[in-house]
Amino acid sequence: MASSSSFSTCTLNRGSFATKAINFNKVFKCNFSSLPNRLPVSAKLSADFTCSRLLTSEKSLKLDQSQRLSRNGMQCCALEVEDVPTFLVGKKFQLDDVIEAQQFDRDILNAIFEVAREMENIEKKSPGSQILKGYLMATLFYEPSTRTRLSFESAMKRLGGEVLTTENAREFSSAAKGETLEDTIRTIEGYSDIIVMRHFESGAARRAAATAGIPIINAGDGPGQHPTQALLDVYTIEREIGKLDGIRVGLVGDLANGRTVRSLAYLLAKYQDVNIYFVSPDVVKMKDDIKDYLTSLGVEWEESADLMEVASKCDVVYQTRIQRERFGERIDLYEEARGKYIVDKEVLKVMQKHAVVMHPLPRLDEITVDVDADPRAAYFRQAKNGLYIRMALLKLLLVGW
Amino acid sequence: MASSSSFSTCTLNRGSFATKAINFNKVFKCNFSSLPNRLPVSAKLSADFTCSRLLTSEKSLKLDQSQRLSRNGMQCCALEVEDVPTFLVGKKFQLDDVIEAQQFDRDILNAIFEVAREMENIEKKSPGSQILKGYLMATLFYEPSTRTRLSFESAMKRLGGEVLTTENAREFSSAAKGETLEDTIRTIEGYSDIIVMRHFESGAARRAAATAGIPIINAGDGPGQHPTQALLDVYTIEREIGKLDGIRVGLVGDLANGRTVRSLAYLLAKYQDVNIYFVSPDVVKMKDDIKDYLTSLGVEWEESADLMEVASKCDVVYQTRIQRERFGERIDLYEEARGKYIVDKEVLKVMQKHAVVMHPLPRLDEITVDVDADPRAAYFRQAKNGLYIRMALLKLLLVGW
Amino acid sequence: MASSSSFSTCTLNRGSFATKAINFNKVFKCNFSSLPNRLPVSAKLSADFTCSRLLTSEKSLKLDQSQRLSRNGMQCCALEVEDVPTFLVGKKFQLDDVIEAQQFDRDILNAIFEVAREMENIEKKSPGSQILKGYLMATLFYEPSTRTRLSFESAMKRLGGEVLTTENAREFSSAAKGETLEDTIRTIEGYSDIIVMRHFESGAARRAAATAGIPIINAGDGPGQHPTQALLDVYTIEREIGKLDGIRVGLVGDLANGRTVRSLAYLLAKYQDVNIYFVSPDVVKMKDDIKDYLTSLGVEWEESADLMEVASKCDVVYQTRIQRERFGERIDLYEEARGKYIVDKEVLKVMQKHAVVMHPLPRLDEITVDVDADPRAAYFRQAKNGLYIRMALLKLLLVGW
Repeated sequence: MASSSSFSTCTLNRGSFATKAINFNKVFKCNFSSLPNRLPVSAKLSADFTCSRLLTSEKSLKLDQSQRLSRNGMQCCALEVEDVPTFLVGKKFQLDDVIEAQQFDRDILNAIFEVAREMENIEKKSPGSQILKGYLMATLFYEPSTRTRLSFESAMKRLGGEVLTTENAREFSSAAKGETLEDTIRTIEGYSDIIVMRHFESGAARRAAATAGIPIINAGDGPGQHPTQALLDVYTIEREIGKLDGIRVGLVGDLANGRTVRSLAYLLAKYQDVNIYFVSPDVVKMKDDIKDYLTSLGVEWEESADLMEVASKCDVVYQTRIQRERFGERIDLYEEARGKYIVDKEVLKVMQKHAVVMHPLPRLDEITVDVDADPRAAYFRQAKNGLYIRMALLKLLLVGW
Repeated sequence: MASSSSFSTCTLNRGSFATKAINFNKVFKCNFSSLPNRLPVSAKLSADFTCSRLLTSEKSLKLDQSQRLSRNGMQCCALEVEDVPTFLVGKKFQLDDVIEAQQFDRDILNAIFEVAREMENIEKKSPGSQILKGYLMATLFYEPSTRTRLSFESAMKRLGGEVLTTENAREFSSAAKGETLEDTIRTIEGYSDIIVMRHFESGAARRAAATAGIPIINAGDGPGQHPTQALLDVYTIEREIGKLDGIRVGLVGDLANGRTVRSLAYLLAKYQDVNIYFVSPDVVKMKDDIKDYLTSLGVEWEESADLMEVASKCDVVYQTRIQRERFGERIDLYEEARGKYIVDKEVLKVMQKHAVVMHPLPRLDEITVDVDADPRAAYFRQAKNGLYIRMALLKLLLVGW
Repeated sequence: MASSSSFSTCTLNRGSFATKAINFNKVFKCNFSSLPNRLPVSAKLSADFTCSRLLTSEKSLKLDQSQRLSRNGMQCCALEVEDVPTFLVGKKFQLDDVIEAQQFDRDILNAIFEVAREMENIEKKSPGSQILKGYLMATLFYEPSTRTRLSFESAMKRLGGEVLTTENAREFSSAAKGETLEDTIRTIEGYSDIIVMRHFESGAARRAAATAGIPIINAGDGPGQHPTQALLDVYTIEREIGKLDGIRVGLVGDLANGRTVRSLAYLLAKYQDVNIYFVSPDVVKMKDDIKDYLTSLGVEWEESADLMEVASKCDVVYQTRIQRERFGERIDLYEEARGKYIVDKEVLKVMQKHAVVMHPLPRLDEITVDVDADPRAAYFRQAKNGLYIRMALLKLLLVGW
């Protein structure tokens, strides 16, 4: 949804109500005495629904406006709140949707990472967690991405939630008959509590969130955003290196087309004393918008053609795949670009002991297989961290902090 | 299955036994002393199985003959039935399969709707319901229908049941190798407790039900039936308008090809003093079979070319999509037909305050988007009602009333 | 994985540690005091993980090395083991992966069949079993096989486990972008506890098992192995005939290409006094490798062109489908071969009362439909037995004996 509220009193009016979900750590009661007596049946139903999804086991209450709101508007007042909800004390923000990396500031990132750590403990020590028991996640994938889909579905199931799956919504769904995304979202939100969406069009996730009464997570929308990948990258650096301020990161490979490195550069700019090194073939250099953005925030960056030199001084060597599909007919350019900067044992030799190699996967041969056995090869741990980040986001969006 | 029984004593004979599932609200014990002692191992196993699926938590017993029956026949007697099962008292019918809209009479419809209301309460107030815990539903879709599939799977999961999914059984399954539907059903029934089937051939669901020892729900079989859509349409009218007797319904759009409106007309005929208005382009007019049927039951109907006039006096304006695929090469005819009767703000202006606009979805532009915000736009609530109807049917077929 | 251990003390060293999962029936505590104090964060995490997946409800502990092992190696000692684990007493083997039929000896087969019997009881008498609650199975299918996939997924869900599904990993996954099987496995193992894999290349399952830190089950790898089919075939014979020693089995149909009959012949050779009869069209005769193998073990076998004669003396007539796709352009040869040996009512007439007809399914017309009603038609029970075998294997691989 478009905006959010952390107040425990809210007024619902037709068309003007924007808050999607308000989560409290304590139960509160609703007073509907101010509702017009002559509301039509369906409006009363909505009002009833609004405050009824009471999860006693979790001691949390979800205010859900996924149903049609009253024809005349209604007021919903919290008469009793036993404790001040946690997020009002230390974490004053509210997570409604996950649409783009830019929506997170440093404090939110830290808070999400804290929850991700809890999720690591749950995944390892508490199999059969029931934190999201009774919740249903729909994965609405308009283009396939098995890896991302399985990561989200595993996250949901590791927390006891259930999943509805659509692997190729584009071909199969009523989209093929010409239905708008908005209509599809309105139908699917009736079947589920949260929608994880992948789409081929930039901006689709934002459109979905504007329509939906339940939380939307963007699992990649075309050349646009893939915010959970960006989050897991930053989380991995923090887990592997132990800090984010003062780190030196080498971004290697296809910097022009890789939304991963672009988002990562954006998020790293939120930390202090970060140095970024761009190492890429000339045809796929980092674009000026990111460079200008970094400069404007005072982040030190430079371009380099010397992978060994960069690798020797960085905490993180973030390698990416040169994407063949971006080169069209120019296979010769692709072949030249892909062989240029390979992370292999020679690179490992110059890297510091505490440094790590990262990669968003899948990889081809831009990291040689013999690197895998080195403990500094962090890319499979990075993939695993995607699970924890997604568990954290699902928990935050569905039951709150 | 072909027929059903509500007796608590039944005789099982090879080939002649037709009852699929008998549900009791009270546990009873089985006496196998009359079984031949020299039954082969596998037959004893079947006998054992027959009365063994005891769901203590639900206090119900499911007699399941999905396994091969005894080679020699056997008798299964209820020695003790603590209470008279509910359905013997007030609801004397037994739901075994859901194959076509015609199988439901007015009493059955009312009873199903009553359960659907209970399901609304469960979905809204009792997340994590375990009514169908331990039950497994297979969705066997020979042609894709994401919307219908997700609705059924959501229904099953909202009640604590589990799902096995096949989204494109036609391409993938052994059907491609030439296996008959009957063989596929016999295999799948070994893996699940109920099968929700969508098929491209009319009559496929009936064939499946004749073969299966577990309940079959028809989720659409080609140009044939889509009974759960018909049920949710009638349920929606009853929920929105508050009654079914005496209502006035305008059926608009493609009345020739839409199985939805055909089934709806059929079901509405079961109620008193119903008036039906057909509003459609000439090329897709309602066929005579339905008209004759309505006439034979004394249902008032008329054809009209004036949508505004019909809309002004109806309780329900049921709009449908003109299906391009029915026009083949004649795109000109399609274009002419699709633009003819649009539900827009002008139509809303003449409609009564209590009336509603319905649509089976997906829609293209036969209802303009600016209608959505009007509380009389009932189509997304209608889609949601599909969830409740399907929850109700799953409950009725698996654990009974 | 390559080897296994049944010791309760093990030393983990980078690269040299091969044991995948050690299951105990009793809880034990781990002593990490010998861990180097200056392990990097991520290595400590791994150590922590190693012994942390404590399933108190099951009173079992799973040592899982799916995470990266320590950089420096570490020792994990069981300080307290309340009881001697069952498998140390009576069943001294440990099941790590299911890759090929050859890995099972007679004792293991018997033990698996014993567990399969328990699974039959659970499926019939204890719906809602929670034996595998909290476990997550990934079905990674590089080619579709709806029947096999649903059987595994049903097995997992019947035991309370959860499933992540990929029906056509070949087309959709990052494999399409050139990712190696090994990389895919390393990612998927981060999301799940066990992987059921079907692949188009012979040997793929073995490669996956060599990479994975979690159990792999081969659900068919190209022309190679389909071990769970072989197990369910032998289990079915034992269930239907009551014994395996001394049985007479007729293998009919496509014996050249059918991996099913080849695996079955291999496994039957483990039993005493088995007689095997090969009945097949000349173009698809059993190959010499299997014949030589049987001869080397002293198994009696012969080829016959007389199905009636073979059927009259066998305990099991195992019919198979002539696979059209093996004949390429030579449809004439296919048509000739497929009509040659049909199991019909005439064959039933000469078969003994206790004998059974089996078939791996799907069937075309190599068994006529009128055979189905005969209690000796065991093929649908055989398919159902696949469920029990798969339940047994999942239980054994995930929580042990």
